[in-house]
Amino acid sequence: MECKQFKEFAKDMVDYVGDYLENIRDRRVLPTVEPGYMRPLLPEEAPENPDKWQDVMADIEKIIMPGVTHWHSPRFHAYFPTANSYPAIVADMLSGAIACIGFTWIASPACTELEVVMMDWLGKMLDLPKEFLACSGGKGGGVIQGTASEATLVALLGAKAKALRRVKQDHPEWSEATIVSKLVGYASNQAHSSVERAGLLGGVQLRSLPADDNLKLRGETLERAIQEDRRNGLIPFYVVATLGTTNACSFDALDEMGPVCNKEDVWLHVDAAYAGSAFICPEFRYLMAGVERADSFNFNPHKWMLVNFDCSAMWLKDPTYVINAFNVDPLYLKHDQQGAAPDYRHWQIPLGRRFRALKLWFVLRLYGVRNLQAHIRKHVALAHEFEEFVRQDNRFEIVSEVVLGLVCFRLKGSNERNETLLKRINGHGVIHLVPSKIGDTYFLRLAICSRYTESHDIQLSWDEIRSLADDVLAEDQPGK
Amino acid sequence: MECKQFKEFAKDMVDYVGDYLENIRDRRVLPTVEPGYMRPLLPEEAPENPDKWQDVMADIEKIIMPGVTHWHSPRFHAYFPTANSYPAIVADMLSGAIACIGFTWIASPACTELEVVMMDWLGKMLDLPKEFLACSGGKGGGVIQGTASEATLVALLGAKAKALRRVKQDHPEWSEATIVSKLVGYASNQAHSSVERAGLLGGVQLRSLPADDNLKLRGETLERAIQEDRRNGLIPFYVVATLGTTNACSFDALDEMGPVCNKEDVWLHVDAAYAGSAFICPEFRYLMAGVERADSFNFNPHKWMLVNFDCSAMWLKDPTYVINAFNVDPLYLKHDQQGAAPDYRHWQIPLGRRFRALKLWFVLRLYGVRNLQAHIRKHVALAHEFEEFVRQDNRFEIVSEVVLGLVCFRLKGSNERNETLLKRINGHGVIHLVPSKIGDTYFLRLAICSRYTESHDIQLSWDEIRSLADDVLAEDQPGK
Repeated sequence: MECKQFKEFAKDMVDYVGDYLENIRDRRVLPTVEPGYMRPLLPEEAPENPDKWQDVMADIEKIIMPGVTHWHSPRFHAYFPTANSYPAIVADMLSGAIACIGFTWIASPACTELEVVMMDWLGKMLDLPKEFLACSGGKGGGVIQGTASEATLVALLGAKAKALRRVKQDHPEWSEATIVSKLVGYASNQAHSSVERAGLLGGVQLRSLPADDNLKLRGETLERAIQEDRRNGLIPFYVVATLGTTNACSFDALDEMGPVCNKEDVWLHVDAAYAGSAFICPEFRYLMAGVERADSFNFNPHKWMLVNFDCSAMWLKDPTYVINAFNVDPLYLKHDQQGAAPDYRHWQIPLGRRFRALKLWFVLRLYGVRNLQAHIRKHVALAHEFEEFVRQDNRFEIVSEVVLGLVCFRLKGSNERNETLLKRINGHGVIHLVPSKIGDTYFLRLAICSRYTESHDIQLSWDEIRSLADDVLAEDQPGK
Repeated sequence: MECKQFKEFAKDMVDYVGDYLENIRDRRVLPTVEPGYMRPLLPEEAPENPDKWQDVMADIEKIIMPGVTHWHSPRFHAYFPTANSYPAIVADMLSGAIACIGFTWIASPACTELEVVMMDWLGKMLDLPKEFLACSGGKGGGVIQGTASEATLVALLGAKAKALRRVKQDHPEWSEATIVSKLVGYASNQAHSSVERAGLLGGVQLRSLPADDNLKLRGETLERAIQEDRRNGLIPFYVVATLGTTNACSFDALDEMGPVCNKEDVWLHVDAAYAGSAFICPEFRYLMAGVERADSFNFNPHKWMLVNFDCSAMWLKDPTYVINAFNVDPLYLKHDQQGAAPDYRHWQIPLGRRFRALKLWFVLRLYGVRNLQAHIRKHVALAHEFEEFVRQDNRFEIVSEVVLGLVCFRLKGSNERNETLLKRINGHGVIHLVPSKIGDTYFLRLAICSRYTESHDIQLSWDEIRSLADDVLAEDQPGK
């Protein structure tokens, strides 16, 4: 493809992208296709000779869009938001053109340096303790990971390396395998599934501890578990505190957990994947009280801060353990400035990495802190609007406190009734929700996701739910 | 940012991207900045109010470009190529607009389905055995990973899960920690550093086995190591065969290793990160003879097949072990069609994933197989042109056979002389190379990387090297 063609093609795509997003409200949020729908629409093999770009453009509506779940529709309330913004899309074009692989500083100094400074900008926006920031001149600093799952795993591996070193000194007679088999980490039973997965990947035990009635993991629960495990000869090494759980956007008692971890010399990682974006607003920072005791902190600007996936922001007070945990240093990756700037390949699982700081830079500059705060506040206000609708209908109940942009609710009565309601909602396809469960209670989650969402969308979503609830409850009458 | 502004901004960026790439030859390939160059150029904090997009555009040349290593310059010969093409950049714009997170089928059916079919298209282009392809109707299939490092780790974790299950049945009295401590994997001492890193991450021993004089790991070396370890009570479980090493683009004796692995019930993973793209040309497929014995196969279209990073293609004959190795299944990720299509979150380390199959689709359609083959063939021919220059200058020697697009060469004589030459080359900044070492021999690697490279670029690169070698050798005379 020649440059002239590219410019025509890319500009046509710019128009398509803008028109798609501005009119996304008109599309059915959930597709109606069945598994395997696409294969018959495509040739069995790649073409021998090039197709025309105009044909590819035309196939987007024919082949791709019928199978797309429209995550940026104001009718999309599933999971948590994922970010999408014009500045981030444009930044990724530039990133695609430069297309450097930023594994070391020399591999493209701008890629590393912009990331270091953007992570400082972002950390300041959250008012993170300065020990986490590179500009403080200490060991600390930030890095862009792909996902929160990877951040949880990286922190776990750092904690594991740190514990191994310490225990080996105390017990030189123990093999590494013996030590690893004694290591134990902790998270709330409300933590994200990726925390359990990090334990499986890292080959260590993770205990799931009970949250209290407000869905918080408490300091005393953690302390009791640690003491019990120490009595049984285990070695506590890692704790994940979740701020804003996926189940119900609940918050662990970080301020209680921190002192326990510090006293017990256990690595404390904070997973604020969703809620972290809210901390750019001072009024929500009470939710991260105690963060100064943590060893690592992570949140996803690619969730709620308008930076397209993947951009998972992670800060470490002391990255040394992570860097040394899987540092291999072949000659072809060495360079003269080693040590003078971070070589981010040591901070992450993969070797390669794209120039992701560009989209953070573009978004922060082209929104400004004020508009990003406005985005968060608007979503929280919309969640409370929906909460109000639910509270005014006495057939429904709110399941847990609405703190940010997630409302957990259900029809009073059986789980089956709520399962039926959810099936109807998603089957109807006007809006999309996913369920969750706490203990034995099944409920529906409505997350405010799209940057296009307005009050009238929330009204429509509520009307849809209420009207389908009418049907479900009518059929649920005894005798029917 | 409003849609109208976005369209102006994005179209301006399209022009910038096209102009940057078409004129990339004119830029100094290696920047002259020092660590820390960027911080003074940026404000200390994110702006409170939005900047103008025109100011952001202007800052690209002022702040970013001075620190960019231009990976797509025909003067860039370091590492291996990384891909960059117009169709891939346009596809990523669409991916950014749809911005779905394809962790399950229902989260965006098109995202999963296009990936399944594209991995079949790609597998057929390489003539992979049909057991690897989803269209064969068996268990096998492909997945797009972020990087080859992750593919190596995913395969290792699958192999570990498989071995654990088997050994637990034979030895129910052994703890999991005991079994893990006995597991041992193998790779050549020429394997990429990410293989060693996968062992560290996965918490298992990996033995580095000596390659032969042609830099190949041989079947008998592998067999001997396995027998020796079995005698010592260890449990061999995983082997990585490299096709196209980073050091010198050498090829393990896959055809000899496969039968050993199959006989010993050891998982064989093929890492063809760089060389795999060449297998779209039938004349290079002799290099993957024996692939039918492998359990998993990986190569990076994001290296040499013009699909922008990240797109690492991995096929598994039986993904069950990987899927079960870290399968956690919370309610909010369940859906009605589970089992009818892959839920790719079980195939990879992170949970989230972008719509990466779009760029594969765009590249395959808009180049066509024929032009992708032409791209590979041209690079190989250019490597041989450079090889010829080196061979005609008797001050130099070729270090290992030139098979694809990499030439390993050195000045005859001491390592120091070659280190000096490399420093001069990179210091001069007209072209960029990185070194490597095999045994005690230090040498220079010249990889053909850019899709813009022509014969006259190779001539220029050679002239630069030859002229700097004149200086080095002159200074190296006794008495000077």
